[in-house]
Amino acid sequence: MTHIGLIGLGRMGGNMRERLRAAGIEVTGYDHNPEITDVPSVDALIAALPSPRVVWVMVPAGAITDAVITELAAKLSEGDLVIDGGNTRFTEDDRHAAMLAERGIRFVDVGVSGGIWGLENGYGLMVGGERADVEELMPVFDALRPEGPREEGFVHAGPIGAGHYVKMVHNGIEYGLMQAYAEGFELLERAERVHDVAGSFRAWQRGTVVRSWLLDLMVRALDEDADLSEIEGYVDDSGEGRWTVEEAIANAVPMPAISASLFARFESRQDDSPAMKAVAALRNQFGGHSIKKA
Amino acid sequence: MTHIGLIGLGRMGGNMRERLRAAGIEVTGYDHNPEITDVPSVDALIAALPSPRVVWVMVPAGAITDAVITELAAKLSEGDLVIDGGNTRFTEDDRHAAMLAERGIRFVDVGVSGGIWGLENGYGLMVGGERADVEELMPVFDALRPEGPREEGFVHAGPIGAGHYVKMVHNGIEYGLMQAYAEGFELLERAERVHDVAGSFRAWQRGTVVRSWLLDLMVRALDEDADLSEIEGYVDDSGEGRWTVEEAIANAVPMPAISASLFARFESRQDDSPAMKAVAALRNQFGGHSIKKA
Amino acid sequence: MTHIGLIGLGRMGGNMRERLRAAGIEVTGYDHNPEITDVPSVDALIAALPSPRVVWVMVPAGAITDAVITELAAKLSEGDLVIDGGNTRFTEDDRHAAMLAERGIRFVDVGVSGGIWGLENGYGLMVGGERADVEELMPVFDALRPEGPREEGFVHAGPIGAGHYVKMVHNGIEYGLMQAYAEGFELLERAERVHDVAGSFRAWQRGTVVRSWLLDLMVRALDEDADLSEIEGYVDDSGEGRWTVEEAIANAVPMPAISASLFARFESRQDDSPAMKAVAALRNQFGGHSIKKA
Amino acid sequence: MTHIGLIGLGRMGGNMRERLRAAGIEVTGYDHNPEITDVPSVDALIAALPSPRVVWVMVPAGAITDAVITELAAKLSEGDLVIDGGNTRFTEDDRHAAMLAERGIRFVDVGVSGGIWGLENGYGLMVGGERADVEELMPVFDALRPEGPREEGFVHAGPIGAGHYVKMVHNGIEYGLMQAYAEGFELLERAERVHDVAGSFRAWQRGTVVRSWLLDLMVRALDEDADLSEIEGYVDDSGEGRWTVEEAIANAVPMPAISASLFARFESRQDDSPAMKAVAALRNQFGGHSIKKA
Repeated sequence: MTHIGLIGLGRMGGNMRERLRAAGIEVTGYDHNPEITDVPSVDALIAALPSPRVVWVMVPAGAITDAVITELAAKLSEGDLVIDGGNTRFTEDDRHAAMLAERGIRFVDVGVSGGIWGLENGYGLMVGGERADVEELMPVFDALRPEGPREEGFVHAGPIGAGHYVKMVHNGIEYGLMQAYAEGFELLERAERVHDVAGSFRAWQRGTVVRSWLLDLMVRALDEDADLSEIEGYVDDSGEGRWTVEEAIANAVPMPAISASLFARFESRQDDSPAMKAVAALRNQFGGHSIKKA
Repeated sequence: MTHIGLIGLGRMGGNMRERLRAAGIEVTGYDHNPEITDVPSVDALIAALPSPRVVWVMVPAGAITDAVITELAAKLSEGDLVIDGGNTRFTEDDRHAAMLAERGIRFVDVGVSGGIWGLENGYGLMVGGERADVEELMPVFDALRPEGPREEGFVHAGPIGAGHYVKMVHNGIEYGLMQAYAEGFELLERAERVHDVAGSFRAWQRGTVVRSWLLDLMVRALDEDADLSEIEGYVDDSGEGRWTVEEAIANAVPMPAISASLFARFESRQDDSPAMKAVAALRNQFGGHSIKKA
Repeated sequence: MTHIGLIGLGRMGGNMRERLRAAGIEVTGYDHNPEITDVPSVDALIAALPSPRVVWVMVPAGAITDAVITELAAKLSEGDLVIDGGNTRFTEDDRHAAMLAERGIRFVDVGVSGGIWGLENGYGLMVGGERADVEELMPVFDALRPEGPREEGFVHAGPIGAGHYVKMVHNGIEYGLMQAYAEGFELLERAERVHDVAGSFRAWQRGTVVRSWLLDLMVRALDEDADLSEIEGYVDDSGEGRWTVEEAIANAVPMPAISASLFARFESRQDDSPAMKAVAALRNQFGGHSIKKA
Repeated sequence: MTHIGLIGLGRMGGNMRERLRAAGIEVTGYDHNPEITDVPSVDALIAALPSPRVVWVMVPAGAITDAVITELAAKLSEGDLVIDGGNTRFTEDDRHAAMLAERGIRFVDVGVSGGIWGLENGYGLMVGGERADVEELMPVFDALRPEGPREEGFVHAGPIGAGHYVKMVHNGIEYGLMQAYAEGFELLERAERVHDVAGSFRAWQRGTVVRSWLLDLMVRALDEDADLSEIEGYVDDSGEGRWTVEEAIANAVPMPAISASLFARFESRQDDSPAMKAVAALRNQFGGHSIKKA
């Protein structure tokens, strides 16, 4: 267990390899990019690991994770253990776990938070799986998680899927937090009375109720570009916000602020809004209000 | 009372003059546009009216209405009656009424709905004021309101300001109704499975739960431009939606759908969103997610 | 084709049988309730129909519709045609159609709007399926739909599933429309200046921009109970609103007003809000603000 | 300037007096509560201060702040300086400043964040006013603000009113942040798969994107009551959230998440929802859906 395999050495996986090694965990990493991989193939990675093997998968959620886990199900042996540390939807975990279980391979899902700062700060870890499997992996988790009390950067949240579930909700909350700061930013930018918007955010970093790590990052962004004039207001979404709202709907949980944050992202990517065309058309029809030609 | 003055002969006032005259009400109209006015000045209008004079003001809300009512307060006589039929904020009615009352001039406020269709269909009327004053004006109201039972197109809703209050809420509801159709339109437009979006709206006109006059207008708009491709999704707001949400806030009334409709209009008029710049900046800071350059 | 089978004779199906018969369509109806059924069993219903058989399924969406269509797939013959007129999720239509197609049985999905008023007013119909199948069914559709031009109460919206898709969006819009009137009602109820809330709604029925069938129903409700004091603010949702928002999310369509309407229903069914417990707890933690004991 | 007057020694003012004194600032405090006041009256407080006097007002916003500032305007002398550190609406600052300026008294407004933790952690300070006045007050501000770089806990945001404006937006953001955590909490509570909700929040404290001071407080609250079962989901609002949304509306700034947070508070205080009564009534009218009797 002091030697694990790691598939996927991108922005997240590459840093994690470094942090694990710094903590004395032996890591054999595989990536399709030959410049950063430790071994030339998944087969070579499997061959390099002691038994029972532990393989941490850290590749993009969806089809690629699917393909990697399917390959591991075919190539690993009974008693081995696969960890999915990507942003996989929790509903997929059941399918992956079942596929692996058919071959006697164990599965643990981990939600990993921290982004590009995790190498330095450590990663917040949310874990789902069997207690014994999680226990076995604690040295790895301890190496990845931040300094400080274990329970402040790590949770074994429940059975398989629970880790990704908690990470999904974490990301949903993240959408809401960012939207709150963003709405406040826009109002301050618009207010004639406020002469120092960046300074106001900066001054919120200590002592205030709204201080947070995201606020610190907002200050960093404003330090680089005080009115964000170089950035377009175009925001992607990676899926976790959508799943959070879908879960809310499935469980009849009101989620007005997080859903508003999700919809704001959708809007940010539209050149023109079909809905607003319809409203403009209606106003024109009943009131003769002028419309703009597209 | 079969002879009234009407100040403002634009899209609304001009049609109202026509509808009133068709009903046998004598109307002297004044407009700053010499091509459509009946008399050359407000003074001439006042001189033309029998005593006690009734003057219906139908000019843009805000500064222009203020100026006209201030002029009438100076020039009319005790016992005369001013009607404000514009989209004045109800809070202004108290001020206008007080200004007129100092000179013994009576005041009634009327919310008028129906847009450019009112000439043909009649206008929905929401009235605030003293019972006796409203009674005196019933022939005028009956001429303007739609055919059918009086109470289905007319209400004396309460004291001064109540007419504009009810009209304000009417318009807030209108925002929500339009937004609901618009969101549905956008989803249908996006759905590959649906081959006839305009036909779907058309088919909702009879028998369905969502049938309405606005739906009929939506069909008219789609008849002219089946995918609204010639219209830009840019929507103004005239103030009544804002006041409705402000009143909701003042009264601690949750108003999630109507406020969402208002905010959607604000968004429709933004070239780029400062808030979404902030979210993009934050995602870039923590996750290294790429941003678009403005 | 002038003789069809109808399974499910509840609030919707029973009225539809009556309307079809009034239009000269022969209907053999089956319901598990022996007091209203025409035949004792599905087998008897199948035996009673001429070939190729047309069977309209009008039972609750979900498990019951599934069971009925599964039974029909087993018992009908090649060339027969099944219509699902319930509020089935469009994604289920593909599965049902495939199951029937294996046996050479045709499938058409129909969204039916109009509620308990359909018997009298006719039903708005949104249809998905093959053109030839839809053509064959036009006498049935013409009997069910409202008087007036066919296209104002009927649409063949696209391939299988399109009928239920359009009905789903129709219901999503319906949520938004109702919420808009409801928010306006609450604000008027709260406004001291407005003395006649029910009268205001009544006065909106003619000439105004917000006039609609739902508004007429609101007036009916207020006629029965002017301040709705006898009704609890508890609102179920049958699924179509949820699916609409899920589809919006899947298609990156902003849907702030309709989603707000859905969440308002969720909230209406909560005795206490876990989310608001959390907000109260937070305020207590940072500000010492008092909290209410549960 | 090393001796200031402080009016209002409640939860905030009392702690501020203590923190100021600990930093070597002499403070004469007045409170209507004889047990905590330093002097028996405002007159005594004024008499005790060196000239030019500096008086910090820290009383509830609204009528009480109005009364205190009015009294100070009457009793202070030319060249004295009044600071309003309460949660006064920025629009009031102009009025207060004008009232004081008539007597040659200076005015500075300060938004103070930090709640009951400010004594220990220091207070985040957002200041509006003339540069020279702010400079003069820097020893006081430095004593109150948190340890660390001045600009991370203090901002001179602009002219009079700017301090309260920035504090208002700070509180609006605070509403959104709390609502985001709260919605996530509710979903986790509802999720069967998640066995340790409190542990999940605890694990977010380090390394994650959502870490913040509010999150730390959420953990404290869950430590005391793991499912918040002892707290009612009833949340007051003190005005700043309302003003933030009103300012957004006045400036055409979309504010969907913060407004949703505000409306959620309104809902939390309703025994029953008039709006949802209306929706229930409508569903009953068109669909015969059952309603609950109030």
